[in-house]
Amino acid sequence: MTPDAQILRALRTAKTGAVSGTDLSQRLGISRAAIWARIEELRSIGYDIQAGPHLGYRLISSPDRLHADDLLSRLDPPQIIGRDIRVFQETSSTNDVVEKFGRDGVKEGVVVLAESQTKGRGRLGRKWVSQTGKGLWFSVLLRPDLRPSAATQLTAATAVALTEAIRQATSLQPDIKWPNDLLIGGRKIAGILTELSAELDHIKHLILGIGLNVNQDSGDFPPEIRRTATSLRLASGTMWDRADIAVAILVQLDRIYHRIKKQQFGAIAEEYERQCLTLGHRVMIQTGSRTIQGRAESLDADGALLVRTQHGRLERILGGDVTLEKSS
Amino acid sequence: MTPDAQILRALRTAKTGAVSGTDLSQRLGISRAAIWARIEELRSIGYDIQAGPHLGYRLISSPDRLHADDLLSRLDPPQIIGRDIRVFQETSSTNDVVEKFGRDGVKEGVVVLAESQTKGRGRLGRKWVSQTGKGLWFSVLLRPDLRPSAATQLTAATAVALTEAIRQATSLQPDIKWPNDLLIGGRKIAGILTELSAELDHIKHLILGIGLNVNQDSGDFPPEIRRTATSLRLASGTMWDRADIAVAILVQLDRIYHRIKKQQFGAIAEEYERQCLTLGHRVMIQTGSRTIQGRAESLDADGALLVRTQHGRLERILGGDVTLEKSS
Repeated sequence: MTPDAQILRALRTAKTGAVSGTDLSQRLGISRAAIWARIEELRSIGYDIQAGPHLGYRLISSPDRLHADDLLSRLDPPQIIGRDIRVFQETSSTNDVVEKFGRDGVKEGVVVLAESQTKGRGRLGRKWVSQTGKGLWFSVLLRPDLRPSAATQLTAATAVALTEAIRQATSLQPDIKWPNDLLIGGRKIAGILTELSAELDHIKHLILGIGLNVNQDSGDFPPEIRRTATSLRLASGTMWDRADIAVAILVQLDRIYHRIKKQQFGAIAEEYERQCLTLGHRVMIQTGSRTIQGRAESLDADGALLVRTQHGRLERILGGDVTLEKSS
Repeated sequence: MTPDAQILRALRTAKTGAVSGTDLSQRLGISRAAIWARIEELRSIGYDIQAGPHLGYRLISSPDRLHADDLLSRLDPPQIIGRDIRVFQETSSTNDVVEKFGRDGVKEGVVVLAESQTKGRGRLGRKWVSQTGKGLWFSVLLRPDLRPSAATQLTAATAVALTEAIRQATSLQPDIKWPNDLLIGGRKIAGILTELSAELDHIKHLILGIGLNVNQDSGDFPPEIRRTATSLRLASGTMWDRADIAVAILVQLDRIYHRIKKQQFGAIAEEYERQCLTLGHRVMIQTGSRTIQGRAESLDADGALLVRTQHGRLERILGGDVTLEKSS
């Protein structure tokens, strides 16, 4: 952990709410003057830190701005996801940054967040609107020991982890819309974009891209999605600390990835099925140039959707655009 | 086609063996002086072109060196594969170059050849030895409308196309060793490395990497592969014009890719099966951390290998290291 992360962690976890300069100096193994310089630096980027000769240092508030050291300071050491965190003010797309890390051989688990994306994207290159400072736009690099066709497991597991993190952090309960969206009250609050680089039988690296609407007001959305999109703020009536939400998500992602590695996808699929709007309903799915109609029955062992068509055949579907049909 | 490609094409196809400067000047729409300058340039890179006041220009010989314009000049306009050709003197790996083209949105069909690769690789990042000027090391960018799990079709089709091209150009008859090798006399002569970038249900781009040993003598191979590798030269006792071989391969690849696009993989799989050493035999396959033993029966509709295990179950295998077992 960097000195800034150590200082923020000490301030946040202080029993009395304050930590003395001497204490920080001893814990970090640097001089009190160096501590003072780091505190000044944190203040300059928006951390309100009070100091007094007898009070010690006290963290009053954090800026509404993502900061890698701050995120690291709030995480217990992750097994994989979140052990390395990078924050960009602006990127084309966090998936692009992580893709480059993937090619360059960076270790799995690195998380890249951006305050804004100039070319945020969803499935099939569709545009994803990423309003500066209003949401969480981030990507995770993974190197799972899976065949490409089992990558669907990770999209499903991410949906479950996101749902759980949002529930814990906000008490809101999102629904999962297969394959890669989270809805609240029927409106889209989050999307997942899974991309991979592979040989035929072997994933080289996989990128989980996540977009979550946090503090948008309805006027923040462009008119064409205003009626179909929502945010945690719109759904709850309160503003949220994006770093708190990010930390809750990273904790859940790290936990669920550990379960995937331990080949516990079966249990994750059951959790997915309980929270998924799509399952148990008659659906129409557009996938590539095909349209499939039938009843969405379950996820298979790879995370693909099994749809029973009107002819009684079971179709295995990896992705597509789903329309729920009115029950007859 | 560039002026150089047009000139080389005219010289190669001239009925009398020679073409006059006036004729070239008219065909290309540039001055005779400009034609002369292009001829001088071609001579400077090793083309032996005779010229005389009454003879016109005559191509005597080509250098043993790959040249994009020359390759283009020998191809009838391809449908997709080979409509754009780039030759590098040296790259890390032609797959890396094509991967970058893929990300940058270059149209499918571009072919990248290199005289030498500093980091040529095979499956699972294994080293591929690429002796400068001795073989064909190249990659093709494709954007097939296939699910990632059907990418195996392209490896199988490439093996069939390579086999056919080698047979036509040299009269040698290679065998296919599933999944991605060509053998002559039980020794490896070529390998195929298929890599892809994908979303869950959709290939964004796919790279076919091909390495073919052409003019190596046995001393050209490092000792560790000298007993298991061969070249067209070693198998036939003659040196080959690498450009001739490259052209034969590109023609077959373009043709077979057109068949894949027309969903004729079934017929391609039958050709594969006829030429494949692995099928019909008892095999042991190491794939990831699993070992599968059984009888290799056929390719399925995606190009995966179907193996009947001793328990009678049919296993579907996408890639791996195969050992043929002695028939009992």
